[in-house]
Amino acid sequence: MRDVAIVGIGQTPVREHWDRGLRDLAVEAILAAMDDAHIRRADALFVGNMLSGTLGFQEHLGALIAEYAGLEGIEAVKVEAACGSAAAALRQAVLAVQSGQVDVAIAVGVEKLTELASKCTTNALAMAADADYEAVMGLSFVAINALLMRRYMYEYRVNKEDFAAFTVNAHANAQHNPFAMFRMPITREQYAAAKMIADPINLLDSSPVSDGAAAVVVAAADKAWEFSEAPVRVAACEVGTDTVALDNRENPLWLKGVERSARRAYQKAGISPQEIGVYEVHDAFSIMAALSLEASGLAEPGTAVRLANEGEITPQGRIPIATMGGLKGRGHPVGATGLYQVVECVLQLRGQAPAAVQVPDVQYAMAQNIGGSGATVITTILERLTK
Amino acid sequence: MRDVAIVGIGQTPVREHWDRGLRDLAVEAILAAMDDAHIRRADALFVGNMLSGTLGFQEHLGALIAEYAGLEGIEAVKVEAACGSAAAALRQAVLAVQSGQVDVAIAVGVEKLTELASKCTTNALAMAADADYEAVMGLSFVAINALLMRRYMYEYRVNKEDFAAFTVNAHANAQHNPFAMFRMPITREQYAAAKMIADPINLLDSSPVSDGAAAVVVAAADKAWEFSEAPVRVAACEVGTDTVALDNRENPLWLKGVERSARRAYQKAGISPQEIGVYEVHDAFSIMAALSLEASGLAEPGTAVRLANEGEITPQGRIPIATMGGLKGRGHPVGATGLYQVVECVLQLRGQAPAAVQVPDVQYAMAQNIGGSGATVITTILERLTK
Repeated sequence: MRDVAIVGIGQTPVREHWDRGLRDLAVEAILAAMDDAHIRRADALFVGNMLSGTLGFQEHLGALIAEYAGLEGIEAVKVEAACGSAAAALRQAVLAVQSGQVDVAIAVGVEKLTELASKCTTNALAMAADADYEAVMGLSFVAINALLMRRYMYEYRVNKEDFAAFTVNAHANAQHNPFAMFRMPITREQYAAAKMIADPINLLDSSPVSDGAAAVVVAAADKAWEFSEAPVRVAACEVGTDTVALDNRENPLWLKGVERSARRAYQKAGISPQEIGVYEVHDAFSIMAALSLEASGLAEPGTAVRLANEGEITPQGRIPIATMGGLKGRGHPVGATGLYQVVECVLQLRGQAPAAVQVPDVQYAMAQNIGGSGATVITTILERLTK
Repeated sequence: MRDVAIVGIGQTPVREHWDRGLRDLAVEAILAAMDDAHIRRADALFVGNMLSGTLGFQEHLGALIAEYAGLEGIEAVKVEAACGSAAAALRQAVLAVQSGQVDVAIAVGVEKLTELASKCTTNALAMAADADYEAVMGLSFVAINALLMRRYMYEYRVNKEDFAAFTVNAHANAQHNPFAMFRMPITREQYAAAKMIADPINLLDSSPVSDGAAAVVVAAADKAWEFSEAPVRVAACEVGTDTVALDNRENPLWLKGVERSARRAYQKAGISPQEIGVYEVHDAFSIMAALSLEASGLAEPGTAVRLANEGEITPQGRIPIATMGGLKGRGHPVGATGLYQVVECVLQLRGQAPAAVQVPDVQYAMAQNIGGSGATVITTILERLTK
């Protein structure tokens, strides 16, 4: 099997980009990644996106983005797995290079959520859930996560206030990331006073509706040094799935999709969870950060909130998460998020993270991108390469 | 590079399936393909679909269809390239098996266009075009094809009536295909009298709005005989793209995306166009059949309509197209179509086509699936395997 590396990264700031279109954002990220890899051409483009059809009246993003990025003619396709779309696009790029059919592939994730009123966005995001058995009942995505959080608090006797640790860490880190949407700290007091959205989820448990794009260039590892002074090996990029509807799961507090994806990734990379130096977690809501830590084997069931409150998730802790802000602080342009996570892991491995959040001597960084409430999970383990 | 084969096929009838949901159709096709390959499990599922979000309020089809097909937990993702989505899903399945990461992959294409009123469907299909530069001007998809057809008639001095040959052939063949939507012949007189839709495109130039699903099982060629008594080698499955908007093309009558995709496919398969025994063409409108024949190197520019009128596109002709009805006669459930074409090619290569349309001794069959007006093109060349 051909070994694969990331040899270029690019990202746009995460913002409400009212003045820019989806294709502008995608092209900016792609060109930045291509510059970073010192290339002018690529063989294939994989576009991760969830909602361009519903919110932007545009499907067919593969050919469209290829054209506007100056890559007309190349293989191009859109990949969708709800909020896991970007990492799913990376997975296709990795497979394409590993197959030997493609030498240089670009994966880009892009989302423009501020096209329409926020009511439309909320409805559109519910398409990550089961339309016939969840959304049809009026369950929005935040409501689904509220059910999970309430159940977690009940089963594990955890207080609502204790979840603050995730938000405080995310915002503390986002401060230092110029691409982040919310570059200000949040205190526990602010968290406790935040407006309730869907009890027990409050505003500061929730990642924001955002626009943005992030991209990486993928090439065969044995050519990686031709492109980059600091290539990063893709030690694993593995997909696991679970039922889409929560009520089809034996234990809703155990994210089997995360477990499947993470286990496959550890096995492929040949490492144990303890060797992960940075973990870019899919903290769309605080509860997802807790459940992900547990199902990934980084905390015992029911202990993730305690772990967070013991300071172990900060850049100085045992398992740093959301080191550039996570979905909560950096922002969550859904179909782009998975590649923001990967770009951030690459920066950590290169030693190019902002000083205040740089984790020293990271050998393995893990990005975990989730579609729906754990139904599609892509876990990517990246490894520092030395010449 | 690992050689890959199709070892199972399945399809639902193409109909207006008012009584069935998208997941029902997808599952039926998948289970049929799995039965055909004598398997109960697979490693990965690639779902081709264009419009489930806009018309069915459901994204995230990868995990959803995997769950309902009894494949919960496996790698699964949705792939979108407008009307080329199904063959794009096949391309990902082929790459996955070629990479060595996946041993058995399923590609399914599924579309449910009859969820909403037909006005919604027409608007939704326009998302295959450029939203900001074409659809925003009011150009529907049939209007774009009407511009192409008018230009073709002008440049090459072809009469509108001469396009009848494509429709007559498609319907003559569809008669014999139990999965086809329109199982009745059409005469030249009926074609001439058909209602105008967007001048010069009439009702009988146009493929119908349909529902359906088609699936294949892909495995390594060296294991193919363990699954199937009649495996078919994927000699090539190649993607080419072009600008999405017509006005960005030098010559709108030359489908560069088709040329790029077909050339790559011939090269990969190591054959010349003349060796193709069956060509399942993307005849969404008659004009697309003509332009595709030309850009694929099977007719000189401006001669495809004459070729059709000389009887060379029938099952007895030099280059049989639409042998089971094509998009016109079998129907065009957009995100499923590319895999219907592939299933039909497999039937031809196995010698299992309905007797009246079986082309004798086919060694190579070509399926060509197009997204938009030629912006994404996937050309698949399939080869008969002998033990």
